[in-house]
Amino acid sequence: MKRGRLISFEGIDRSGKSLQAKRLADWLGEQGQPCLLTFEPGSSDIGKQLRKMLLDKELVRQPLTCALLFAADRHEHVKSRIEPALAAGKWVICDRFRDSTLAYQGGQGIDEKILEQLNDLACEGLQPDLSLLMRISPQTSLQRHGDNDYFETGDCDYMQQVAANYDRLATSHQQRFAVLDGEQPPDLITELVRKTVIERFNEIGK
Amino acid sequence: MKRGRLISFEGIDRSGKSLQAKRLADWLGEQGQPCLLTFEPGSSDIGKQLRKMLLDKELVRQPLTCALLFAADRHEHVKSRIEPALAAGKWVICDRFRDSTLAYQGGQGIDEKILEQLNDLACEGLQPDLSLLMRISPQTSLQRHGDNDYFETGDCDYMQQVAANYDRLATSHQQRFAVLDGEQPPDLITELVRKTVIERFNEIGK
Repeated sequence: MKRGRLISFEGIDRSGKSLQAKRLADWLGEQGQPCLLTFEPGSSDIGKQLRKMLLDKELVRQPLTCALLFAADRHEHVKSRIEPALAAGKWVICDRFRDSTLAYQGGQGIDEKILEQLNDLACEGLQPDLSLLMRISPQTSLQRHGDNDYFETGDCDYMQQVAANYDRLATSHQQRFAVLDGEQPPDLITELVRKTVIERFNEIGK
Repeated sequence: MKRGRLISFEGIDRSGKSLQAKRLADWLGEQGQPCLLTFEPGSSDIGKQLRKMLLDKELVRQPLTCALLFAADRHEHVKSRIEPALAAGKWVICDRFRDSTLAYQGGQGIDEKILEQLNDLACEGLQPDLSLLMRISPQTSLQRHGDNDYFETGDCDYMQQVAANYDRLATSHQQRFAVLDGEQPPDLITELVRKTVIERFNEIGK
């Protein structure tokens, strides 16, 4: 069986990743393409509990502890859900993946080499075939702010650092990344996502 | 202020570590030495929850996930309890520390280099000043078996592998390790522990 493809959605908080990931998965399904829509953190059994822990700022005090827990969640996720789906020939659409760790924990001052080591360990070397960066300004992110989720707060300075990290990642891995303007209307972005996927993989929509 | 000393107790399940660690801490206290008695896994706030997760075999399915969670627990433990105590000039007596990961997760087939990387990350390079290996046979460990704690079960083959890993660690780090025969009567072991600490540090009991 032909191995599936892994597409990650990345971007700062409230950049529209979840909506576009769901729309892409729905559309792939409509094209008759078997597809797994998933997310991080918290998709594995253990990940659900880790997510609760990560939400408690009083509990996780060290940035590196946070990175290690994300790595544990990612490893279970890769082994229990992502790899089996890829082996079964499915498209895997993942709302956040390893670049989130580089952008966010990198923004907390942890050396990128250490984070890449952890990512490589957790993913056993697995990289997305395509990473879609939904690019919005930190100001837009803050304006869209609506809840108090740990993963969805943070001050403007931190969000700017995370956004800068994403830009740097997209520049250093141009072959893997596609950058989309997340400030545009959602329906237009949905079209751009489909167009990008069709162009990149040359396998669907023909 | 003079920095404190870190002493770890290591050994396979039911080798008498906890009893001897407590006795050493009590004795150091009697000598007027400020002392922190602590243990792994599960001493940090987050560690208590991680310990529960690690006890659930259905939840943690991948050996590497286990190693990453132990590393997260260890990092919080080092930063929140061990390092502050050492900085305050205390003796820190730790019932299991980084060598447990090498012995146990190493016994689950994870490469030792990966485990050492994780240990170095988690401990920020901190090593015990003295590691006391309580050496008993896997058969003795199984005979002393009394409960169903995840950390206190395992079949004989696995325990033999863990024991072999400990022996190898003690041989490759002879300056740091002292090996005690854990099959002897507890009171005799207590005396040997004190003697070893006095000889090694030349600071107390004089």
